[in-house]
Amino acid sequence: MTSDQLLDLPVSRELRRHADRMQSSEKHLRHLIAAPDRLKRFSQRAAGLFFDYSRQRLDADTLDLLMELAAQSGVEARFRQMHAGQVVNVTEGRAAMHTIARTGEPAPVIVDGIDANAELRRVRAEIAAFVQKVHDGATSGGTGKRFRHVVVVGIGGSYLGTEFVATALAAFADKGVQLHFLANVDIHNFGAIAGEIDLEATLWIVISKSYTTAETLANETQARSLMETAGLDAAQHLITVTAKGSPGDDPAAVNLQSFHMFDFIGGRYSVTSAVGGVPLSLYLGNTAFERFLTGAAEMDSHALSAPTDQNLPLMAALISIWNASFLGYAHQGIIPYAQPLAKLAPHIQQLNMESNGKSVTMGGTPLKGPAGIIIFGEPGTNAQHSFFQLAHQGRPFPVDFIGVLQPQYTGYNTLSKGVTNHQELWANMMAQANALAVGKEAAATERAFSGNRPSSTLVLESLAPEDVGRLLAFYEARTVYEAFIWGINPFDQFGVELGKVMASDIRTEMAARNQDEGHRFDTCDPITRFYLETLFRGRF
Amino acid sequence: MTSDQLLDLPVSRELRRHADRMQSSEKHLRHLIAAPDRLKRFSQRAAGLFFDYSRQRLDADTLDLLMELAAQSGVEARFRQMHAGQVVNVTEGRAAMHTIARTGEPAPVIVDGIDANAELRRVRAEIAAFVQKVHDGATSGGTGKRFRHVVVVGIGGSYLGTEFVATALAAFADKGVQLHFLANVDIHNFGAIAGEIDLEATLWIVISKSYTTAETLANETQARSLMETAGLDAAQHLITVTAKGSPGDDPAAVNLQSFHMFDFIGGRYSVTSAVGGVPLSLYLGNTAFERFLTGAAEMDSHALSAPTDQNLPLMAALISIWNASFLGYAHQGIIPYAQPLAKLAPHIQQLNMESNGKSVTMGGTPLKGPAGIIIFGEPGTNAQHSFFQLAHQGRPFPVDFIGVLQPQYTGYNTLSKGVTNHQELWANMMAQANALAVGKEAAATERAFSGNRPSSTLVLESLAPEDVGRLLAFYEARTVYEAFIWGINPFDQFGVELGKVMASDIRTEMAARNQDEGHRFDTCDPITRFYLETLFRGRF
Repeated sequence: MTSDQLLDLPVSRELRRHADRMQSSEKHLRHLIAAPDRLKRFSQRAAGLFFDYSRQRLDADTLDLLMELAAQSGVEARFRQMHAGQVVNVTEGRAAMHTIARTGEPAPVIVDGIDANAELRRVRAEIAAFVQKVHDGATSGGTGKRFRHVVVVGIGGSYLGTEFVATALAAFADKGVQLHFLANVDIHNFGAIAGEIDLEATLWIVISKSYTTAETLANETQARSLMETAGLDAAQHLITVTAKGSPGDDPAAVNLQSFHMFDFIGGRYSVTSAVGGVPLSLYLGNTAFERFLTGAAEMDSHALSAPTDQNLPLMAALISIWNASFLGYAHQGIIPYAQPLAKLAPHIQQLNMESNGKSVTMGGTPLKGPAGIIIFGEPGTNAQHSFFQLAHQGRPFPVDFIGVLQPQYTGYNTLSKGVTNHQELWANMMAQANALAVGKEAAATERAFSGNRPSSTLVLESLAPEDVGRLLAFYEARTVYEAFIWGINPFDQFGVELGKVMASDIRTEMAARNQDEGHRFDTCDPITRFYLETLFRGRF
Repeated sequence: MTSDQLLDLPVSRELRRHADRMQSSEKHLRHLIAAPDRLKRFSQRAAGLFFDYSRQRLDADTLDLLMELAAQSGVEARFRQMHAGQVVNVTEGRAAMHTIARTGEPAPVIVDGIDANAELRRVRAEIAAFVQKVHDGATSGGTGKRFRHVVVVGIGGSYLGTEFVATALAAFADKGVQLHFLANVDIHNFGAIAGEIDLEATLWIVISKSYTTAETLANETQARSLMETAGLDAAQHLITVTAKGSPGDDPAAVNLQSFHMFDFIGGRYSVTSAVGGVPLSLYLGNTAFERFLTGAAEMDSHALSAPTDQNLPLMAALISIWNASFLGYAHQGIIPYAQPLAKLAPHIQQLNMESNGKSVTMGGTPLKGPAGIIIFGEPGTNAQHSFFQLAHQGRPFPVDFIGVLQPQYTGYNTLSKGVTNHQELWANMMAQANALAVGKEAAATERAFSGNRPSSTLVLESLAPEDVGRLLAFYEARTVYEAFIWGINPFDQFGVELGKVMASDIRTEMAARNQDEGHRFDTCDPITRFYLETLFRGRF
């Protein structure tokens, strides 16, 4: 690498100049996409995914410059170092080996002196055996009832990926298990779930690598208290997913079983590890979970070895950088035209914004331009009836449209206006991408559309477990590639620390008051004191 | 008004200069909030809501200029015109009278020659009578089963507000009715609901003002087909909420009953009309729905008559404009520390982005600077473990924190680290607002926080129906006030038209192919043709 950050690379100057040229009217998307070979030249298919960037604001020169950017940034070498188990998470001194959670290859991969591959295989085998016993009824609750409810107690990376996959594959959930997510420390989250479950038929999975996450432990406390009140033994109803040797892995703790997670897989990249593996295997079955891993591995292999200009996640990352750092788009919409992918945007919101919302390079130099973008989204067509007014006539933002050729349901095909619902869905997705690109002139200014609003379209053949694995791994690789082009570390998250420290101080004040009604908040700043007093009063 | 748009007002020049001054280091939030009377001077309480803007990037001069902005923009006069039933939706020639859907006053309000107040009271009485019969069992399904499932068939404004309120007040739902939302035309949405309901005990509510919404009618078609197959009569299982005289209001149509909605209430402002009234009264009961309206009316009354500098939604709107048009923030996070408000952000995302994502003034002049911002959010503490890394160390965005003093659940109070879960939740909310504002220096750059990141804090005493009504009406009034300051029309949505027209053309091609397997897509552009062929092939 010639520099430790994007904006210092020689090609960045070229890209800035080129971005100015792309503002000219002849580079409007309505002209760019009129070229007969536009789609052929600006799309790729690999690893079960079709990626169409024909409606991004790119021309052939842009692609050449982005190839040069890939070369100058050293992004591919860095990505290979990650796969090889090198310490790419430099601030925390860790490898980032989420991809080996889904490889089928038995070759040893030594990380921190242990064979990471063998460790992950061991954990997967333990999960499969446990899940089989639950599904068989060999392992059941304290009163002999089969486990029909599984409560996932975990937050952030211990929650969002699993929720995404569970929602995407709900049509495959045939094990008689209902999944509940207890993420928020808010007692409303706990109360709502407590009202839905049959406690005797409930298995709680507490997920925390350090087993010190305040929200998760507070929820675990409520769960244990609820079981105790009902005369149930937590040792028969609660399992953990945690780091080897953490407080939740204590052999003396009253857990049914513990499954290990590792420092070389970060929370937001952990859905293919035991973090997602335990709940998703219980919910979908071992086979469906393995199929999901197979799809992810297929995309990993592509992301690692495809040539630059045929590498889907790398191309997508280069386009993200082009949009964010050169065309100036600070946002990205993720709009799957597939209701089962309703939780994709919240997951990628975390994955991408927590990875890339950084202010310094991997070497600690302050960035000369912002990294990271704001990710948001809802499924289409819902999004059209929500914020697409702004997408068409307000501030432009790039969109990922995601389509699925074959729906999970084959019935319900009554025609409306001559088409099935699935066709109507597709008609809308196709129309939106086109409308954003071309726009429309009109004499009445409120009916005019400026167009030139960029989007990509991703297509999957179906929503089988493999497809969901491919999509997940695509966004993971893309996020990491983006980070490596910007020159930042996508694997740390020191930005969450300050709030934790301050919350701890406030908690201490609250605990003191809980102990002693006479405790005053005299050492707090006036705003904090006002809120503490108001909260303990319970009214204004 | 001296001009038809914000950036031409004399005070705008002052605000721009002032925004430059606010960039200086002595105006960093860590200094601003250190003033002992900061909270007292930069917060208000009214209509059951506490609004703290002490951690916005404002000083006394900013407030003076914003007062001047209110005066020069004529925003309050326009707001009164709206309340008086004048045609403020100029492009569509309509009034915007959502507020009279919740007023208790019987005074006639003549709109389009009818007494709008009397019409809304009539519809409310019809809803209350119908709901009572359903809850009593006097009205039941065709086979005599009580209605236990209510499917809300509607999209956008016929969906998001109701989902927000239903989620917020789920703890009050004691009528034995389960609510399902069939919004997306995606057959996965239909298929999932079809698998959850007992068809004989299901009431379908089809909601569409024009009764021509493609998605909603396609879903209605599937529902009727499902009932027919099961030998059930839709006339006993399907009601409509629609405009008087629409195709869904046809007396010959096989509906159990129709409830009217009106042109003077736009979709995204319609949750307090029959659109929300029918499903929410069925789900929560008539009394809870009336209480919800009472809270909204209280805020409406405040928003209409409070002096400028004591008017919560107007102050909030002025601050939004300050942030968006002068400090340059293009985004706004909405982070309720209350899991029942989980659907607030998606609702406000629609309400605000569809209202204010515009490119021309009310008079049709192109805007000189963008209006509208991107709204997104998740409940805290979940958001902290998702995208708050970026909030603290990446691109800054203003945040609305929302806290609730008394939770809906009074049980589950086992202490963890000396505090209840509800206290832990509050400790986090307080800490986040403070951490974003003050930041923290650190030698290790990756652990440094620049701070100066603005937020407001809104506090409700509880989450009773009245509180949810207040919160809804606050955001509605704020959205409208923002629009009137920018000088735009918040009540039209021509930006959604182009996509609809293009989707219709594509649908015609699909229908032709459904009719005739030999139909080719020769008249389509190459990209559209590629997707049509791929979709009909069902694989790559």
